Amino acid sequence: MTQSHAPSADREVGNIGLLPLQIVEGKILLVDQRLLPHKLEYFDASAFVDMCHAIKDMVVRGAPSIGVCAAYGLAFEASRLARSGPELGFEPFHRRLLEAAAILKATRPTAVNLRWGVERIMTVLEKHQASPAVAAQAALVDAALILQEHIDNNKAIGDFGNELIGQDFRIITHCNAGSLATCGWGTALGVIRSAQFAGKNVAVFVDETRPRNQGASLTMYELSADKIPATLICDNMSGHVMVHKKIDCVIVGADRIARNGDTANKIGTYNLAVLADYHKVPFYVAAPISTFDPAIADGTVIPIEERDPAEVLQLAGQSITVPGASSYNPAFDVTPATLISAIITERGVLRPPFGEAIDRVLADKF
Amino acid sequence: MTQSHAPSADREVGNIGLLPLQIVEGKILLVDQRLLPHKLEYFDASAFVDMCHAIKDMVVRGAPSIGVCAAYGLAFEASRLARSGPELGFEPFHRRLLEAAAILKATRPTAVNLRWGVERIMTVLEKHQASPAVAAQAALVDAALILQEHIDNNKAIGDFGNELIGQDFRIITHCNAGSLATCGWGTALGVIRSAQFAGKNVAVFVDETRPRNQGASLTMYELSADKIPATLICDNMSGHVMVHKKIDCVIVGADRIARNGDTANKIGTYNLAVLADYHKVPFYVAAPISTFDPAIADGTVIPIEERDPAEVLQLAGQSITVPGASSYNPAFDVTPATLISAIITERGVLRPPFGEAIDRVLADKF
Repeated sequence: MTQSHAPSADREVGNIGLLPLQIVEGKILLVDQRLLPHKLEYFDASAFVDMCHAIKDMVVRGAPSIGVCAAYGLAFEASRLARSGPELGFEPFHRRLLEAAAILKATRPTAVNLRWGVERIMTVLEKHQASPAVAAQAALVDAALILQEHIDNNKAIGDFGNELIGQDFRIITHCNAGSLATCGWGTALGVIRSAQFAGKNVAVFVDETRPRNQGASLTMYELSADKIPATLICDNMSGHVMVHKKIDCVIVGADRIARNGDTANKIGTYNLAVLADYHKVPFYVAAPISTFDPAIADGTVIPIEERDPAEVLQLAGQSITVPGASSYNPAFDVTPATLISAIITERGVLRPPFGEAIDRVLADKF
Repeated sequence: MTQSHAPSADREVGNIGLLPLQIVEGKILLVDQRLLPHKLEYFDASAFVDMCHAIKDMVVRGAPSIGVCAAYGLAFEASRLARSGPELGFEPFHRRLLEAAAILKATRPTAVNLRWGVERIMTVLEKHQASPAVAAQAALVDAALILQEHIDNNKAIGDFGNELIGQDFRIITHCNAGSLATCGWGTALGVIRSAQFAGKNVAVFVDETRPRNQGASLTMYELSADKIPATLICDNMSGHVMVHKKIDCVIVGADRIARNGDTANKIGTYNLAVLADYHKVPFYVAAPISTFDPAIADGTVIPIEERDPAEVLQLAGQSITVPGASSYNPAFDVTPATLISAIITERGVLRPPFGEAIDRVLADKF
């Protein structure tokens, strides 16, 4: 069931932006990001299968938000199992949650935060082997902590990133790395929010971000709510805009960062990075440390999700091309570390060569 | 009034592709390119105001096709004036056609072929000062000649371009530089057609080309009709495609080429050129010599048309962003000559540095 509100940015958006989820009366309600900016509706993802569907079908998207939602989804499932029927022993309880964790992790392959959120909850559960009920309670507490940590981390990312932003900066961003994507304040948009909060006159050019237009629908929505000047452009205009609009930097989020700094993010990020490099425009990635994947040496082995060809073949549900046409629809691409000027994290700004700096932050990650 | 047909590619598309205009029973009928690939309808542009509207609103688009249509539009107007009322003297006849020429040239600012087509017809008219009727008849004959020259030139461009294409080439193209855009066979698509005709196994990745999606609607339509393997991609995927799909070259058309080789073409061409350069993929421009502008030393002074912001803010007539959002909508961009590997013309393949080669072809242009 969905709960519907008129999408009033002024009312709904607080200091930290519109949160992608709310925990209300024992339910997980997700902002249905597929419907913004036209409708603000909440999707009830309290049931485990509904959370899996919500992640797969992009009711919620954005690597950090997916991580938080997956953590909540698993904690809710633990709670349901602990409460259902005669009390389970820890072993069968744990086995069923391991299965649930595997299903959750398989919903989307690219963002590492999904795995991170799931594994963090599994670790908490495994610390309380005496009682499933106690383990489930601890998991719910930890999920809430993860959410709060994201808000705090994003504020820290914003503060560190703000130091890179000049008084009248013109910035290009891609897709949505705002509050909706990252659970409060935002990463790329968090830096922009922090700069505005610090009294700077930032102006943002927003890539529409085909095929799903998260730039047009979500980033424009968040910037409008914060009254930050924003201009929507098509993705293919970024080079022309760099030449003619005196762009000072590009800031994007990330879905997975390898140990050497290679960064997977929404398809089109790589184009933007090559163009920034050509125009000598600094290219910044803003992401929490949960986005770093210690298991991956470089970007060549990051799995790239391919989504339904219909996303490319259609606009607003209508075909834009000939019947039977083929399309290719990679949802992400990988930007090599050599094209990245800095990675802005909650522990500070990392500079190239990134390998050593990333090893250092990963060493005290947990 | 429009004439409607079911869009049957097999029936409508001959050897040279679907022509953007037909002269039938004293009328100029334009394929309404705004409606393809869903509907094949003809727009009657026989009246001068209707031709101006058709060019401005992109019933017909593509620099060479605009040039041919403008030539026909002016010749038809000359014919109408010569036939209307008591016979005009040449001086008032000429003055009114100069006014008409100015109106035509102002419909779209970037493509130089528009000016070229208009000025060529004016030159013909001015050679027959004894009689408006004779002048108008000569103009109609010359318009037909211009159309035939385009078909012949495009075939020659295809033949020269084919020499650059290997047996199993994978090619990216942008927008539509096919028969519809160039009056028969095509320039960029003409090279691809010629390569297929020569027995090569070409495969094409087609940029959808936001905001008006001419790649999705027109290029996919033409390639489908010719049974050339084609894959539709979003504009922001080209870098990822170059990395993962072994792209051998990029081929695009042109709307205006400066004396040094700087090339204005559909917005997004410049992004693609920078990406091709970064990936060491040859970047070819295919265009008839009427696209060269002898009056312009380099691309910085080419006027770039800005179109209605609604083209960016809406998809299929529906808003994709927040109410009151701003957008930027340059219809073209300029690719510097330094990013172009070769310019394929009907007189041969020009190689950098282009200045001298362009001066040479311009010297015997008329």
